[in-house]
Amino acid sequence: MPTSCAPSSCAAPIRRKPRPPNNPLSSMKIQNLRKKIDQLDSRLLTLLNQRAKLSAAIGQWKLASGSHVYAPDREEHLLRTLEGKNAGPMPHGALRSIYREILSTSRACQRPLQVACVGRELSNAWVATRRRFGSSDNYQSLSSLTQVINGLSRRKLDVGVVDRPTLIALVWEKPALAKKFAVCGDITLPARAGRNGNGARDVYFLLSHSPVPPTDYSKTVVALECTAAFGSVKEWQAAFSVLRRSLLHVEQIKWGKGNSKSRWLVELKGHWTADDLARKLEPVQMIRRWLIVGSYPEVPHYA
Amino acid sequence: MPTSCAPSSCAAPIRRKPRPPNNPLSSMKIQNLRKKIDQLDSRLLTLLNQRAKLSAAIGQWKLASGSHVYAPDREEHLLRTLEGKNAGPMPHGALRSIYREILSTSRACQRPLQVACVGRELSNAWVATRRRFGSSDNYQSLSSLTQVINGLSRRKLDVGVVDRPTLIALVWEKPALAKKFAVCGDITLPARAGRNGNGARDVYFLLSHSPVPPTDYSKTVVALECTAAFGSVKEWQAAFSVLRRSLLHVEQIKWGKGNSKSRWLVELKGHWTADDLARKLEPVQMIRRWLIVGSYPEVPHYA
Repeated sequence: MPTSCAPSSCAAPIRRKPRPPNNPLSSMKIQNLRKKIDQLDSRLLTLLNQRAKLSAAIGQWKLASGSHVYAPDREEHLLRTLEGKNAGPMPHGALRSIYREILSTSRACQRPLQVACVGRELSNAWVATRRRFGSSDNYQSLSSLTQVINGLSRRKLDVGVVDRPTLIALVWEKPALAKKFAVCGDITLPARAGRNGNGARDVYFLLSHSPVPPTDYSKTVVALECTAAFGSVKEWQAAFSVLRRSLLHVEQIKWGKGNSKSRWLVELKGHWTADDLARKLEPVQMIRRWLIVGSYPEVPHYA
Repeated sequence: MPTSCAPSSCAAPIRRKPRPPNNPLSSMKIQNLRKKIDQLDSRLLTLLNQRAKLSAAIGQWKLASGSHVYAPDREEHLLRTLEGKNAGPMPHGALRSIYREILSTSRACQRPLQVACVGRELSNAWVATRRRFGSSDNYQSLSSLTQVINGLSRRKLDVGVVDRPTLIALVWEKPALAKKFAVCGDITLPARAGRNGNGARDVYFLLSHSPVPPTDYSKTVVALECTAAFGSVKEWQAAFSVLRRSLLHVEQIKWGKGNSKSRWLVELKGHWTADDLARKLEPVQMIRRWLIVGSYPEVPHYA
């Protein structure tokens, strides 16, 4: 028995007791509701296992046919179809969060997705990666973009995650390297206090083996360098008014060496294989150089 | 048209085409499997919305009766029941990951859970918090444990998350403060390379208003200071062999001032309200002081 000092406890007496309900019926009603939830959960469990079995069967075919486990266009189509049918009260965002895990489980029943980020565990890149993929995917932390690109080329990786300026700087200087992978998505982390302003948004690109086919909700990310420097997004928008209808987002970001005031990252509606893109950018005299980073499905902000 | 430099592109031609299947039947089979998955998804959607409706009804009762939105014992019971029924192929870990989001949605249909961690956004404490709770809960970053405790006392928060040494140091020095909250769970982050050794595991405690009632899988966390210093876990285990059968985990951790070689954190089977705990610790002469940090359900490692 410890004698020099009385034992102390930070566990206070149990206080969690709901105030008695107004009448006994309401307590019965709660028990009824909970029983119904239990029944629903049993049915959910059955359906989830049926889904896992079907996914495993598709996985066998995918392996045999050399098809990819990760198909962002198909996943986004599935999610948008479900959102179309979703009558509530579950919000679309919650539906997507549940399906992030369901799709992760389904992929794992085929073959766990191999995902790597440039950055150590618990780094921002790692957090971004875990945010997009699910708990059943396999994660690796790599120390350079080159390692990620090598992993993709050798099919050791399905997806790589890297911060935006690092990727653009590389392909801006060495466009030939870009043949080894394709940008297939992006992840935005919440803006952090005190880090607003130029280039402060934490955005990451997803890289995979092959470009994503066109969808009805494709967007194209273009990096461009202008002949003039613009001081603000408004100035830029005025100069590039020809893009207005297809423009989704424009941001001044810094990559590599060079005048960051003349370098912009632009998101346009549509897939880069559509003729529209060249038609939109051709008349713009102020572009010194442009680089199509990639086309992939736009994911809603609440996702 | 940009003339000074030809446009370059990192979007290679679309290469993702599965090799043609061996026979047309297999392609039909895939289409059939995908159709079945679509049908399952529609049924899942319906059940998830029914669950959300029932949760909202329970939420109204909870609000009226002053009951808590977060009940870790009930949630763990639900998960263990489902695991008992889970015939696979979905692994238990995947089931828990999907349910982390389903339960988060259910809570949000009652009233979004207010969760705060001690640490800025994207800090390790924040990562730990996001790992345990779901996408539909509300998150805050606070700068001190005192702010978390105040938030819990004023019922502005449902759950607070703080790293283990900070919490123990506080209640070790000021046991009276511990009356204002109860430890209701823990979260372990993956060990990071180069940070193994004493006190290196990133473990966080969950704090709530009230202690968690006993369950069949309760564990009790006890911080204790010994009269002698032990150099290793093995030495400690030999001296405290009386605890062997109820001992789940023992770890030398550093908190506050004092000889860290004589301070240990111990996890024992059972709830602190059971007589066992005093009976187990009483015969141990080597305990100078002990502190019951809390009792809460043990969560499996794969969760």
